[in-house]
Amino acid sequence: MPTISISEHIIRRLKEIGIDTIFGVPGDYNMPFLDIIEDDPKLTWGNNTNELNASYAADGYARIRGAGALVTTFGVGELSAMNGIAGSYSEMLPVIHIVGTPATASQDARAMLHHSLGNGDFDVFHRMSAMITAASAQLTMDNAITEIDRVIQTAFTRKRTGYIGIPIDLMTAQVDAPQIQELDLKPTKNSDEAQSVALKQILQEIQDAKHPAIVIDGCILRHRLEKEATAFVERSGFPTFAAPMGKGAIDESLVNYRGIYSGNVSLEGINKEIEQADLLIELGSIKSDFNTGNFSYGLDKTKTISLHSFKTVIYHAEYPGVGMNELLPLLTKSLPEKMSSIQFEPRVKPAAIDDSTTEITHNYLWNKVPEFIQSDSVVVADTGTAEFGIFNMESPKRTTFISQILWGSIGYSVGSAVGAAMADRNRKVYLFVGDGSFQLTAQEVSVFLRHGLTPVIFLLNNDGYLIEKLIHGPDRAYNNFQMWEYNQTLKYFGGYLENNKCKSLIGLESKVSTRQEFEDTMKQVNQEPNKIHFIEVIMPQFDAPRELSLLVGSSENR
Amino acid sequence: MPTISISEHIIRRLKEIGIDTIFGVPGDYNMPFLDIIEDDPKLTWGNNTNELNASYAADGYARIRGAGALVTTFGVGELSAMNGIAGSYSEMLPVIHIVGTPATASQDARAMLHHSLGNGDFDVFHRMSAMITAASAQLTMDNAITEIDRVIQTAFTRKRTGYIGIPIDLMTAQVDAPQIQELDLKPTKNSDEAQSVALKQILQEIQDAKHPAIVIDGCILRHRLEKEATAFVERSGFPTFAAPMGKGAIDESLVNYRGIYSGNVSLEGINKEIEQADLLIELGSIKSDFNTGNFSYGLDKTKTISLHSFKTVIYHAEYPGVGMNELLPLLTKSLPEKMSSIQFEPRVKPAAIDDSTTEITHNYLWNKVPEFIQSDSVVVADTGTAEFGIFNMESPKRTTFISQILWGSIGYSVGSAVGAAMADRNRKVYLFVGDGSFQLTAQEVSVFLRHGLTPVIFLLNNDGYLIEKLIHGPDRAYNNFQMWEYNQTLKYFGGYLENNKCKSLIGLESKVSTRQEFEDTMKQVNQEPNKIHFIEVIMPQFDAPRELSLLVGSSENR
Repeated sequence: MPTISISEHIIRRLKEIGIDTIFGVPGDYNMPFLDIIEDDPKLTWGNNTNELNASYAADGYARIRGAGALVTTFGVGELSAMNGIAGSYSEMLPVIHIVGTPATASQDARAMLHHSLGNGDFDVFHRMSAMITAASAQLTMDNAITEIDRVIQTAFTRKRTGYIGIPIDLMTAQVDAPQIQELDLKPTKNSDEAQSVALKQILQEIQDAKHPAIVIDGCILRHRLEKEATAFVERSGFPTFAAPMGKGAIDESLVNYRGIYSGNVSLEGINKEIEQADLLIELGSIKSDFNTGNFSYGLDKTKTISLHSFKTVIYHAEYPGVGMNELLPLLTKSLPEKMSSIQFEPRVKPAAIDDSTTEITHNYLWNKVPEFIQSDSVVVADTGTAEFGIFNMESPKRTTFISQILWGSIGYSVGSAVGAAMADRNRKVYLFVGDGSFQLTAQEVSVFLRHGLTPVIFLLNNDGYLIEKLIHGPDRAYNNFQMWEYNQTLKYFGGYLENNKCKSLIGLESKVSTRQEFEDTMKQVNQEPNKIHFIEVIMPQFDAPRELSLLVGSSENR
Repeated sequence: MPTISISEHIIRRLKEIGIDTIFGVPGDYNMPFLDIIEDDPKLTWGNNTNELNASYAADGYARIRGAGALVTTFGVGELSAMNGIAGSYSEMLPVIHIVGTPATASQDARAMLHHSLGNGDFDVFHRMSAMITAASAQLTMDNAITEIDRVIQTAFTRKRTGYIGIPIDLMTAQVDAPQIQELDLKPTKNSDEAQSVALKQILQEIQDAKHPAIVIDGCILRHRLEKEATAFVERSGFPTFAAPMGKGAIDESLVNYRGIYSGNVSLEGINKEIEQADLLIELGSIKSDFNTGNFSYGLDKTKTISLHSFKTVIYHAEYPGVGMNELLPLLTKSLPEKMSSIQFEPRVKPAAIDDSTTEITHNYLWNKVPEFIQSDSVVVADTGTAEFGIFNMESPKRTTFISQILWGSIGYSVGSAVGAAMADRNRKVYLFVGDGSFQLTAQEVSVFLRHGLTPVIFLLNNDGYLIEKLIHGPDRAYNNFQMWEYNQTLKYFGGYLENNKCKSLIGLESKVSTRQEFEDTMKQVNQEPNKIHFIEVIMPQFDAPRELSLLVGSSENR
């Protein structure tokens, strides 16, 4: 009978879900697995600075490629990645967490090994991870193939995280591999009968409605249904909005695209347009606090049809097992060709740049920066001001926006941007990160340099945790911290050291505090598109994007 | 009836266990608690760069003060601290993890809040933490006082971690506080009858033994029984060894102190001395792989008496509930005055400095560096070469050694050294950290500067994860990473920025690669004892302490 090593089987499955880069940090319980990654010419090792950053990188990678993976070591390594893994679970990214564990015999003997709690319990960290993954397994010789397949298939199709613990002695162990078929990665088939009932009713409601509207949201991105959503938007002609988590799912230049809808946090006028609708069709909605203007979003249930990943809701009726992967294209096809031909008012725009100051305010930055961003880019925005700044930033063509509106872990963006940049070297990555967030994960900038990646990094320096100050304690010492020489970041992380071989890739590393400086700098940045640039942007200490100010006004003590 | 706010009650209890500094990172679910810390003139806020570093700092602080605490925010913050908390659990440090959670009403409504998994489960992270703590609680108005007391008392007396989740709306809520008594922090009373039987037998065995020996280990430090252990060692006069985790528990200048015992990893000759014993008396032993030369430690069970924290083992008989806190002083008192007067051979010493090179080798470093270390210091050594280098380093008087021999999380030392330095500003902290470990947690150097702390930091730069290379894959790419400009660390983290107000505290920041440079530098360091110094020490790439080489020789694929 043909055999395969357990590690090779994991690698095969990871490749099937589109993975060519695996993130992580070496540890003495995982190195034989890393050998296999390093020896595979089709794979790249992430070489992250720590496990939290590796988990963020796997998440960012998954947002571009559809799935991500990381390898950590038992106990110390895997626990350091917990925040990132839980974030991927929460925000629905299929990230596979592979953990190298002590040898089977040592586990069976309940030996007091390093990286353990010292109590002989070698399953405890797996049990912790099981709470933040859709599927998890501890591999044995007997269950390896089926458990690997179950975890990866479940994680991929449910768009959630998976955990695989593999004892070090099993990494190179050969197991029987009779005619391995490719994994079935298609979404679960809908119930035909329920679907046809739901479809018929939705079509009826659409026909009866006078003013239908569409809101595109995050799960469209997670299930990679951008084309299907666009087809529905184009064919229906209905006024269409994106929730913040859905930003980038459809082209903002579509004639019936109206802007970002986020309840009371929307631009003036957007809310009114939604309220005029007598039917709201939601595609892939995620009704979290920061995605919905603190739950000020939406119409009455009796006016709302919601196509979700694994169910459909029509007013008060739920159709479990009728998911949008299958229903949405069916619905589009069933619509009359170009059914609506509404004449739209001019689109609502963010407030124009206020020229009364030369400072780099948020009003200025988010209005101005799109002029300098290439199409086909990836914009990564950290939690805090950047995350809210991009809400109404004009999107260059085919730009992907990455932020964590639901999970909201500060520092996430740096690792995530590394992952996104590794996922597609042909797309330029623009990273916007506040000084407070940056301090949590700054060392991951080293990994851009290590891999010769060429993002443009904007360090938004307002000297403190501004989002926290706006929520509570603006004058509190705990919302402030040490100022760093941020504009020495590429230098400190070895950018100019000859041995690192990345010096030729370094473009600008500078600090700007006026609009003129910013614009001059950006022109230079765009003259060197194949270099990494680090721009420290000095901003007024209490200036915030309008969207953030509106949101925190309604969120204290939630 | 008198009342107290729930936060104030937590603070009161933390003070009772000796805490005056609370580590952590602000988040929007914990800030009202931070207000109370900031407004209390007797408390200092740790102001850490991230939650993992905060948890390491609380651990290092606990090793000096006897207990530590940190505050994080729901989900994102608490999960980032998991590795550190599990480490404190494993290595038996009472660290209290206080987590600010969403308001009770939002939790009850299962709202889809930021920092949650989006599924309405607000207890999930608490359940995860419950697996790595000795006691945990989610506070409500009704249970707050009793649960706070239970968690803190259990953690403190069991020398393990505790978790307290407190909804943001309860932080300032007043609860009835009828005649609050101080917590009873004394160890559980031993069973008198069992103890007297055990004591009698131990005394008999000691009397019958011809060559008894003592091994002091980590739990002596955890239960702060250094004085009691020293009294036993002095009164018995028996040859006494320390296991690596027990280093620093007794004064190495005692006449009957013989050196570090760690099975086959001990210095030549030490093992023979142990094997000559016909009775081994272990005090507070922790028989983990790296503490015992991969389980090559000790004598037969029929020759071993072991006084543990909560039980006593005499040969094959266990006495549960007979803990060494009470038994050890009793045992000492029951011994005849100065019972033994052995003439000792000269003590076994590490190999002298090999003068055949000018490079800074481990053999040179650990022999030389004690000359420059003040008494009453704290030596913090990261996992990897430093951790093993200190095994047989000569201890200056009253020096505390901090490393994680059981948990072994790389990067731990930087945060831990911050905590240790905050715990007692009168003791000089010497931090030894490898380049690989440093990259995980480097930003915490910023916190030394923020608080005006003045450690001496040795960055041992051997260009790679040497401990991993020795275990597996010496030439593997995954065991290497980007070189940084380490000797710009204090500068990068804002040491020289006027606004940070720490410039006057900065001493040397330099790189040394020869012995002469090292010694010249250390002389300068000692001329400025009240400054922070950062010394990048260039070491040969594959040079390791003898102890590490011996250990890894026996540990692959464990």
